[in-house]
Amino acid sequence: MMAMENLKQFLVLLSGAAVFGIVSIVFVLTWVLHFREGLAWDGGAAEFNWHPVLIVSGFIFLQGTAIIIYRLPWTWKCSKLVMKLIHAGLNLLAFVFAIVAMVAVFDFHNGANIPNMYSLHSWLGLTVVVLYGLQLVLGIGMYLIPVTPASWRAAFMPVHVYSGLLLFTSVIAVALMGITEKLIFALQNPKYKDSPPEAAFVNVLGLFLAVFGALILWIATRTSWKRPSDQILHTLHTNGGSEDNTKVSPAMSQLSGGMDAEEAGEVRRRNNKFDDNTN
Amino acid sequence: MMAMENLKQFLVLLSGAAVFGIVSIVFVLTWVLHFREGLAWDGGAAEFNWHPVLIVSGFIFLQGTAIIIYRLPWTWKCSKLVMKLIHAGLNLLAFVFAIVAMVAVFDFHNGANIPNMYSLHSWLGLTVVVLYGLQLVLGIGMYLIPVTPASWRAAFMPVHVYSGLLLFTSVIAVALMGITEKLIFALQNPKYKDSPPEAAFVNVLGLFLAVFGALILWIATRTSWKRPSDQILHTLHTNGGSEDNTKVSPAMSQLSGGMDAEEAGEVRRRNNKFDDNTN
Repeated sequence: MMAMENLKQFLVLLSGAAVFGIVSIVFVLTWVLHFREGLAWDGGAAEFNWHPVLIVSGFIFLQGTAIIIYRLPWTWKCSKLVMKLIHAGLNLLAFVFAIVAMVAVFDFHNGANIPNMYSLHSWLGLTVVVLYGLQLVLGIGMYLIPVTPASWRAAFMPVHVYSGLLLFTSVIAVALMGITEKLIFALQNPKYKDSPPEAAFVNVLGLFLAVFGALILWIATRTSWKRPSDQILHTLHTNGGSEDNTKVSPAMSQLSGGMDAEEAGEVRRRNNKFDDNTN
Repeated sequence: MMAMENLKQFLVLLSGAAVFGIVSIVFVLTWVLHFREGLAWDGGAAEFNWHPVLIVSGFIFLQGTAIIIYRLPWTWKCSKLVMKLIHAGLNLLAFVFAIVAMVAVFDFHNGANIPNMYSLHSWLGLTVVVLYGLQLVLGIGMYLIPVTPASWRAAFMPVHVYSGLLLFTSVIAVALMGITEKLIFALQNPKYKDSPPEAAFVNVLGLFLAVFGALILWIATRTSWKRPSDQILHTLHTNGGSEDNTKVSPAMSQLSGGMDAEEAGEVRRRNNKFDDNTN
């Protein structure tokens, strides 16, 4: 495994994210199976229940995993292409979960004569799903189609990163709005305001989702935890990192594919650090 | 005014944020004055209405302004201390708005015999206000008390920045949950699901708040739009930026106060850029 700064802190936070993510999935399953009508594809309430289950397990947990997949140091020996395919694959799977989750709600609404798309939750939710699909198409077009010029890849990378983190955060926000709606509509006698066990249980699920999101965002935004660029890996293998590669020639930048300005800065930063250690 | 990369793009996005922020305040005022019971401090519904008004104008708009205040290039000639005081002052004002907004809800609940603190909105909202208060205390202690060691300031800066952006995002998410709650409770005959004009109007307010947040987050996270460190300003004034100051001595780092590792990287990056222009 490659050396990583603050590896212990990384592993603690990664484990925390895994625990909060998995416990959230257990909670949403407990909610629909124990407190609600269970799961079925019958056009009724049990079909609606697929909506929170698929959003939490797919659109939140799988998407969060996809975001930090490059950060796992034991994957740094894998090729960048393999990691890109895993990143895209997990996001594609999350998108499929989100689409099926939406179909479940429309089916349920239509069966129960409830209007579609009237709430702020539905407006923002549909917007996020559409933009997520656009992000997928642009991401594949930019970073998995070999003919895309490296200059386009670099120029688009800040937008790709920002959009990805914003969409992930928005999905959690929209999920918390959905939990709010569902608890108000579903809890009658006792109502939500009477705080029956289900209300407190699902509120805790909401807190867990927020903590999961916060941990993923912290991990994703630490530049020192970024996957080293292929150039650095190459440098490390050939001369132990002691050579000063501060100036990256345009030709070398081309080789590294999607390396953006931020990554180029990272190259300098890390090389300077290696210099400090070895000179 | 200091030169800024992509100044035109910055001004377009800043104007966009200002427009969406101010229109959101107009919308929330229209909501409570035109569609609801108006504003008063009478323990009734009109007192509740201060809650969304103060959250949108204070906890969202003022906080967003505080976050990007360092980015405004026409402030770069002001001392860092003055800007820190404006940053802290705006955040303190936003905190006061949030406290009064909470008092308004508790008063209204108590007058109407509605339980307090049962909903996920209230749990997350109170958590965010408490953490925001902690962020204020830590921020003042770290960056405005002169005796705080520079090493502490630098070590805490990534946490300060991350927490600030996370809290800002969370406030918007919690506000969208609050809008959802209020529309479900307040709209009866026609109900929320029947999409009366008020429902669509307030949904649009929710979209505007989300766009305002997205613009502030983009502006705040572009490293090339950061206020140049005092050292760079000094370098520019004394030798036009052509000297290679890549290696920042510990003594100079001390001088620059709260400069963190990220800022140090920025110094190198910008100096390299200046070198490219002048050599």
